[in-house]
Amino acid sequence: MYELLTGLSIIEASSFVASPTAGLYCAQLGAEVIRVDHKAGGLDYDRYMLTAEGRSLSWENLNRAKKSVALDLQSGEGRELLVALAASAGNLITNLPEQSFLSHGAVAEKCPDLVSVRIMGWHDGRQAMDFTVNAASGYPQMTGPEDWDAADPPPVNQVLPAWDFITGAYCAFALLAGIRHRDRTGEGKELRVPLGDVALGTMANSGAMAEMLYRGGNRERLGNAIWGAFGRDFRSRDGKRFMVAALTLKQWSGLVAAFGIAREIAALEAEIGVCFADGDTPRFANRERLFLLFQQAADELDWLELEARLTAQACTYERYRTMHEAATDPVLVADNPLFGPSPANPSGFSYPAPRSFANIPDEARGDPRPAPYLGEHTEQVLSEWLGLSSGQIAALVDRGIARLSDRGA
Amino acid sequence: MYELLTGLSIIEASSFVASPTAGLYCAQLGAEVIRVDHKAGGLDYDRYMLTAEGRSLSWENLNRAKKSVALDLQSGEGRELLVALAASAGNLITNLPEQSFLSHGAVAEKCPDLVSVRIMGWHDGRQAMDFTVNAASGYPQMTGPEDWDAADPPPVNQVLPAWDFITGAYCAFALLAGIRHRDRTGEGKELRVPLGDVALGTMANSGAMAEMLYRGGNRERLGNAIWGAFGRDFRSRDGKRFMVAALTLKQWSGLVAAFGIAREIAALEAEIGVCFADGDTPRFANRERLFLLFQQAADELDWLELEARLTAQACTYERYRTMHEAATDPVLVADNPLFGPSPANPSGFSYPAPRSFANIPDEARGDPRPAPYLGEHTEQVLSEWLGLSSGQIAALVDRGIARLSDRGA
Repeated sequence: MYELLTGLSIIEASSFVASPTAGLYCAQLGAEVIRVDHKAGGLDYDRYMLTAEGRSLSWENLNRAKKSVALDLQSGEGRELLVALAASAGNLITNLPEQSFLSHGAVAEKCPDLVSVRIMGWHDGRQAMDFTVNAASGYPQMTGPEDWDAADPPPVNQVLPAWDFITGAYCAFALLAGIRHRDRTGEGKELRVPLGDVALGTMANSGAMAEMLYRGGNRERLGNAIWGAFGRDFRSRDGKRFMVAALTLKQWSGLVAAFGIAREIAALEAEIGVCFADGDTPRFANRERLFLLFQQAADELDWLELEARLTAQACTYERYRTMHEAATDPVLVADNPLFGPSPANPSGFSYPAPRSFANIPDEARGDPRPAPYLGEHTEQVLSEWLGLSSGQIAALVDRGIARLSDRGA
Repeated sequence: MYELLTGLSIIEASSFVASPTAGLYCAQLGAEVIRVDHKAGGLDYDRYMLTAEGRSLSWENLNRAKKSVALDLQSGEGRELLVALAASAGNLITNLPEQSFLSHGAVAEKCPDLVSVRIMGWHDGRQAMDFTVNAASGYPQMTGPEDWDAADPPPVNQVLPAWDFITGAYCAFALLAGIRHRDRTGEGKELRVPLGDVALGTMANSGAMAEMLYRGGNRERLGNAIWGAFGRDFRSRDGKRFMVAALTLKQWSGLVAAFGIAREIAALEAEIGVCFADGDTPRFANRERLFLLFQQAADELDWLELEARLTAQACTYERYRTMHEAATDPVLVADNPLFGPSPANPSGFSYPAPRSFANIPDEARGDPRPAPYLGEHTEQVLSEWLGLSSGQIAALVDRGIARLSDRGA
């Protein structure tokens, strides 16, 4: 683990995906991230996939390298302890509602220079999740086979909870921005990040909102074709599906050479009077004709031959894998320094675990760390951060206000 | 604009989506972000959608609030100027290859405490783009209608370039982490973030990689149903499609009440001997029966009635919109403080522009800023950062090494 954020302690009161992701990224770069949960586990404690013993593989991956404190967050005393911890650390990531006991104001009373990042649903306070903001964004209506049920085109949801993950990364960024501001001015900040705004704002930042307003209507559904450039999935003679993309001249020339269709391309250029090397526009405008030529060439070649040619031309391509194939692909996982040896996961199941996405050349990455057991660090954190004695902590445990660990539970 | 990152200057040598996004987020929180491009525009200068005049709506949204410097980056002299700018600012975001003239080492020679973030393709140096890492990730094989072409299930690409946007946000975070480390230790850092690692690492962080290995195979394709919980799209009597999600007891009870199917649910519980309030498992395991009951209820109700009921029960739901509907929906855009008045966009086209995703309660957000014209700040930046005189800059322009602005070009 890199120690870029050493010295930084963050209280995370989280559930589901976006908020734990923000803490995860900070923990993987060396921050002390203390996730505080209700003693029976947060709302995501049982999130699928569950092992036969009932351990959530989702939870143990999104909470890797963190500490865990378990308190009775339905009791006033447990809530006061969480507020006190957030005030002591001075940094808070949460998706609890602003109207909850963990409002910025409640913590800032004890810690005026608190920096908090709060993930919300919609900007106006309505509830939202990745699935619902996605429905509002318009992307599902543009996703999926172009010829599928054209009379009444149904939405196609993306399976990746992309809005959650963008929000998580953005919140980790926003937290560091707030902390940098405090370092320079002494002033705390509350930063609120609505999931719905991340979705609409991303749509706008990509240019797609301006595009819709400029068109005065919707973009056509394109299946797996890249909009505004040359690219699509093709299938080799032996049935392997793969994606190719050409947004630059180099990528385009490489593809034409790899597919061995220079003559056919030249003939098509002569026929319709364009030069495909000129840029995205001729390639995109005539994509149907081009797709035909590329697929005809692919029909004559097995994947191994095609792959060798695509590699030789340094093309931008990739074979589609199922997720199980991806997870067991040596190039992607076993031989990829992103992944390290399996840590002692609470589930007891062993598998390669990812390190931080960022790598620093010539610096040891260290091994991935496991997620904690729920409450594994309750005693340590209450002692170190709130100065509670062993006796005081034992009394909290006896009264059900604090819980030490769900190991073996 | 919030001034959280005031005092921070960043050189961005970027193209496409991920790298410009990292700079955009920093610029929207007050950093001075100077994008340096080849004088004819970077590889993304003509990225679709283009206006009738040829302005890229993608470019002008991903580069909002930045400064622009245009140099001849095919010349040694232009390259030296970019290296000198990066060394002067001390902070660099780029997706140029490490083997290019803009390697960390080349800049660090003049600025030993440089913090650079470099977006790569795959970890092993192979080229990659959002579309191709997506193909490798396994998500396209899990996306799309469950009953579509079951004999030979084709991949369904997500239209949102999610990997690019996650990578962009992560790189903004990684940059601030590196800068924080330098602030504390005086030491610079090179951080490399491969797009492919963001895809595989996200798959792993979500628990999906562990899931595939634990299953020893692939997850089934689920169409628009949420995996491991209750949720799917439904259609009202008048044909409006909407998404509902219930991951918590409160969400579940609200949905049952809103659809008015308490009696049917109780009958189903009695028939199959489960209690749907118990958690995700019974709801997910019996989803087909539940979906039937929910759709039958929706068949009897128009959307306005359904929406009123869903709102009254504070359900987590959203109507599907086309992207044009989303872009013109007052609740999502015009009445949403995320969006501000149209700035003077280089395209000349006026439309609501987004502010930063993060908002700070009770602090003025300021108006969104426009993207620059290409080269608009060449003179100012060369003068301020490199101390060049007007005469020196004029000579660079005369010799085609620098360009002042593409306004009116």
